[in-house]
Amino acid sequence: MTEQFDTLAVVGVGLIGSSVGLAARQRGRARRVLGVGRQPATLERARERGAIDEAVDLPTAARRADALVFCTPVDRIAAQVMEAAPLCRRGALLTDAGSTKAELIAAIEEGLPDRVAFVGGHPLAGSEKSGPDHAHPDLFEGRVVVLTPTPQTRPSALDQVLIFWEGLGARVRLMTPEDHDRALALTSHLPHLTAAALAGVVPPELYELTAGGFRDTTRVAGGEPEVWTAIFQRNRAAVLAALGHLTDRLAEFRAALESGDAAALGGLLSQAKGFRDALGS
Amino acid sequence: MTEQFDTLAVVGVGLIGSSVGLAARQRGRARRVLGVGRQPATLERARERGAIDEAVDLPTAARRADALVFCTPVDRIAAQVMEAAPLCRRGALLTDAGSTKAELIAAIEEGLPDRVAFVGGHPLAGSEKSGPDHAHPDLFEGRVVVLTPTPQTRPSALDQVLIFWEGLGARVRLMTPEDHDRALALTSHLPHLTAAALAGVVPPELYELTAGGFRDTTRVAGGEPEVWTAIFQRNRAAVLAALGHLTDRLAEFRAALESGDAAALGGLLSQAKGFRDALGS
Repeated sequence: MTEQFDTLAVVGVGLIGSSVGLAARQRGRARRVLGVGRQPATLERARERGAIDEAVDLPTAARRADALVFCTPVDRIAAQVMEAAPLCRRGALLTDAGSTKAELIAAIEEGLPDRVAFVGGHPLAGSEKSGPDHAHPDLFEGRVVVLTPTPQTRPSALDQVLIFWEGLGARVRLMTPEDHDRALALTSHLPHLTAAALAGVVPPELYELTAGGFRDTTRVAGGEPEVWTAIFQRNRAAVLAALGHLTDRLAEFRAALESGDAAALGGLLSQAKGFRDALGS
Repeated sequence: MTEQFDTLAVVGVGLIGSSVGLAARQRGRARRVLGVGRQPATLERARERGAIDEAVDLPTAARRADALVFCTPVDRIAAQVMEAAPLCRRGALLTDAGSTKAELIAAIEEGLPDRVAFVGGHPLAGSEKSGPDHAHPDLFEGRVVVLTPTPQTRPSALDQVLIFWEGLGARVRLMTPEDHDRALALTSHLPHLTAAALAGVVPPELYELTAGGFRDTTRVAGGEPEVWTAIFQRNRAAVLAALGHLTDRLAEFRAALESGDAAALGGLLSQAKGFRDALGS
């Protein structure tokens, strides 16, 4: 079997980066995987788990890799791409796994040297768990990875990134960065914000009186605050619009409760159940 | 082994009622379990599953049982208790599994004949699943059951109900009906309302772009609309107060987002994570 890439670099060896490394090695997508990270202990753990062959710094990764996948928090990706790009081999393929796309890609495309290609991406496989210890080679199996081409994206680079993710078991969907951000504001960022708001108003002394409903509804609030602050900051307009939809809906619940309107309450709950049942448990 | 009750009647053979029947039979809490319900097919399924020995109507159950557990939706319990009580044996023990307590217990205590004893209860073991097919004899194992005595509650009856639930594996906690309702508004009713509001604003055509976060956060929105309408109606004041806490918190998120205040956003998310981490996954 010939690997798709000789040398793949994973920048950021948390849950996503380490899972990319594990999957790429085990599924023969790369002969060798380099890992870049800030914390030596995390890099060492990623190496022990078999997610990377070798820990290197970003300039070294840029010089040696055919392809680089940036899996760091969204507030660091653009700067790291800009640091790496001038050092990369001609024709190197750069892509990312950032949870927001429009602002990030605009910043990257503005300054990207012609010698490399960049394709924005987002695997929908996050978790409230983090770090290489939770990484899994099948994390992307059956999951959706959104790629967000722009008029500047080279079709051949897009095709390479598509083939890469399909090789990790993912289903690839193509969207504009703006459409991605508006959709994810509703499907990911708003649920996180809501879970955090809810977790924040139920004091732990009442936890004995919670059941599965509270546990499920607030689970993602255990995610890393810095990661999510960066996501919210970089998708502010769409998150604010999504939050507006939620608060409008909560106002409808409030009105139905205040007026004791059982039919209105039942209607709101039935509509939600109808939507949710379409998703499965 | 001598069973606690000779004949136990379960009124309502959904998830909770059928699980009470299954657990009581398998754990030797009752020699015989009668089931009462509106739908013959559901009663037959409860019998097939071993949750009840026999399906009877409510008057028959009242005449024959030493103890009756009302597991119907909260908008039906008071009327059923009132229908059954005059027909019950002297000294019969009546208890319930309703999700709201204050209004219900006030209505029952107002008209309860002296010959029977009533103790309000609430096992925190609901689910978005319903019906006897999902019943389980271990549903209450390690779960909290809140009993809500009032000045009118007979200590011997309270003790019997406590022993019964402990016999099904539950941990019993005692609270006033009002304290129960205020706490559950936060720990159960508000999460349900929030999940339903969130599920209602994310259209199914975006489900392909959801991951585990959305799935978890909205799971309980699959619950039965009639059941939850009744719960919200019967705990209106406390649910409205809880909703006020949530909307205040969402307004803090909005203000932090609008002003681009990363420190404020991070603070809100960190506080939520701190609380949520105390609960475990």
